[in-house]
Amino acid sequence: MSRTVLMLPGDGIGPEIVAEAEKVLNRVNEKFSLDLHFESALVGGAAIDETDSPLPDETLSKAEKADAIVLGAVGGPKWDSLPMAKRPEKGLLGLRSNLELFANLRPAILYPQLASASSLKPEVVSGLDIMIVRELTGGIYFGQPRGVRNLEHGERQGYNTYAYTESEIRRIGRVAFETAQQRGKKLCSVDKANVLEVTVMWREIMEDLKREYPDVELSHMYVDNAAMQLVRAPKQFDVIVTGNMFGDILSDEAAMLTGSIGMLPSASLNSQKQGMYEPCHGSAPDIAGKGIANPLATILSAAMMLRYSLEEEEAALAIEAAVSEVLDQGLRTADIMSEGATRVSTREMGDAVLNAL
Amino acid sequence: MSRTVLMLPGDGIGPEIVAEAEKVLNRVNEKFSLDLHFESALVGGAAIDETDSPLPDETLSKAEKADAIVLGAVGGPKWDSLPMAKRPEKGLLGLRSNLELFANLRPAILYPQLASASSLKPEVVSGLDIMIVRELTGGIYFGQPRGVRNLEHGERQGYNTYAYTESEIRRIGRVAFETAQQRGKKLCSVDKANVLEVTVMWREIMEDLKREYPDVELSHMYVDNAAMQLVRAPKQFDVIVTGNMFGDILSDEAAMLTGSIGMLPSASLNSQKQGMYEPCHGSAPDIAGKGIANPLATILSAAMMLRYSLEEEEAALAIEAAVSEVLDQGLRTADIMSEGATRVSTREMGDAVLNAL
Ligand SMILES: CC(C)[C@H](C(=O)O)[C@@H](O)C(=O)O
Ligand SMILES: CC(C)[C@H](C(=O)O)[C@@H](O)C(=O)O
Repeated sequence: MSRTVLMLPGDGIGPEIVAEAEKVLNRVNEKFSLDLHFESALVGGAAIDETDSPLPDETLSKAEKADAIVLGAVGGPKWDSLPMAKRPEKGLLGLRSNLELFANLRPAILYPQLASASSLKPEVVSGLDIMIVRELTGGIYFGQPRGVRNLEHGERQGYNTYAYTESEIRRIGRVAFETAQQRGKKLCSVDKANVLEVTVMWREIMEDLKREYPDVELSHMYVDNAAMQLVRAPKQFDVIVTGNMFGDILSDEAAMLTGSIGMLPSASLNSQKQGMYEPCHGSAPDIAGKGIANPLATILSAAMMLRYSLEEEEAALAIEAAVSEVLDQGLRTADIMSEGATRVSTREMGDAVLNAL
Repeated sequence: MSRTVLMLPGDGIGPEIVAEAEKVLNRVNEKFSLDLHFESALVGGAAIDETDSPLPDETLSKAEKADAIVLGAVGGPKWDSLPMAKRPEKGLLGLRSNLELFANLRPAILYPQLASASSLKPEVVSGLDIMIVRELTGGIYFGQPRGVRNLEHGERQGYNTYAYTESEIRRIGRVAFETAQQRGKKLCSVDKANVLEVTVMWREIMEDLKREYPDVELSHMYVDNAAMQLVRAPKQFDVIVTGNMFGDILSDEAAMLTGSIGMLPSASLNSQKQGMYEPCHGSAPDIAGKGIANPLATILSAAMMLRYSLEEEEAALAIEAAVSEVLDQGLRTADIMSEGATRVSTREMGDAVLNAL
């Protein structure tokens, strides 16, 4: 069964890291006879420069047809002064929303080989393994109305709308409960139900779903407390589920607890398990083109793709084992470098993973 | 000049910690002949139990007349199932909004004596001293419309509005720039200007204000990145300014970096410098009534009150010095206890501060 994977390099370090992921995917494609076909397209700032749109029609139509997508990253100072509707980020948000990629899975895992990279004490983070399930196509990211209006007395007011329907909450809730079932069976739903009506409803629906998943222990936490608890004692968490905006903040905070955000992949899935896979880190324009970026988060995103969208668990495991092996070998890109290790470039890291495969 | 201070113990550990702050205030009142008069009133769950309202008229009118307010904390599981409008938190939010306490100052300071309490590595947090300036009477906390509605096809939608006017942003911006001028002259404004229109306007206005404060270095950061940077390298920050919701999350995260949130005070000021002062921590219902809560954040909040609202710097410094001295003496409540220190109760800690005065 032939399947198509769309590669979207994007901006900044995107092209460099996606190139390494493609090398790795080509290798497992052969080795495991996966019959994957690769296409590529423009998105974000790169697409703006060529076509004046962050999400050209051609890219969207290729994305809709693909079985899965690997994305590098979008954005950079070059496009920062563009109006909201023309920014690189709209390319990413447009893909998420057009493909209905509502379920964003963001693991925060501490690799034992990289424990010293964390700014937290070893005993606080060793063995850390959290999965954040973030709602990705609703909430304040997409709520209407939004904009800037002139008030009667002459001044302007900026406004956005944080909204969720019951069915939007229910479908992300199910993904979270199912994820918890496959892991430690503990789910913490994060909201601000003491202030925001929309999250009161969120909490109610999570409580409601609980009855369908009696083996999962559900708890609730206010977002401010969750931001604290992640710093204080992150290992108390197994799976966290939350809305788009809180998920943006908490998943980045959780990722940084590991000290090695250059290692963390993510998956964004729709209900047909079609998915977009990208590193948690951004486009890092300051180091773009220098060949020093860490390609492992993107390579691990490709592994997640094999697992979730293409159901090629064996190939996924092979990539993950290869990444673990290069870490064991002491190979490190600049971002995760530590004393006694061997510093390698983006390409050398990709080659090392190939060799380990 | 006689001045009135309103004491609002509130819920949970509130009454215990406010009692200690009042003892300390009484002592400095005498010692420095401050001519302070104390009143007290009900707020939050305690007020609901007595009057059926989280903010009785009598409390609000006392608050309006007072020169400053010391609040313990509000909320607890007992009142968690009440409808939004009747929750203890509405007492707190009502005070903030009725008194127009728009400027919330939340320091995150690491006490050298308590460095080991942090979950972060000592080199990452030693000497930490950040001031978070949070907008407190606008944004999504108060935005209209809000609620839960029935959509045409039958399901419900919850919604809240994140809105700011130019003047709301400008006045909190000025407080932040002025705070930065009195400190390290570095201000970081946190927004999500790549996604939310309201924060595009926020960023514009901060840029605009910059011209009035040429001695302050202004930078901008997306909220997800700020949540990461606080974990990775918190000492890069001097003053952070942000909206109500992001400020709620980031100030709690920053506070927890110190590991001793039981030590952190906060001030909420209006444009007449009338203010409400409260510990950063919550009502901690699980330890209420046990006499083990840490009263120091509330005592330090009283010191902040003397400084900002009552302009009694000498008395403020005396309290802060006394707190530092009891820490030097090795006295610790349970939350900050460490090996070799002497564990004391809430009351014993208050008495020790009195003795040190
Ligand atoms: C680039 C930006 C729009 C995006 C988001 O906020 O969702 C990014 O921060 C992310 O988390 O994937
Ligand atoms: C109790 C709650 C309403 C409040 C808030 O969210 O502002 C608290 O978390 C705080 O930060 O003072």
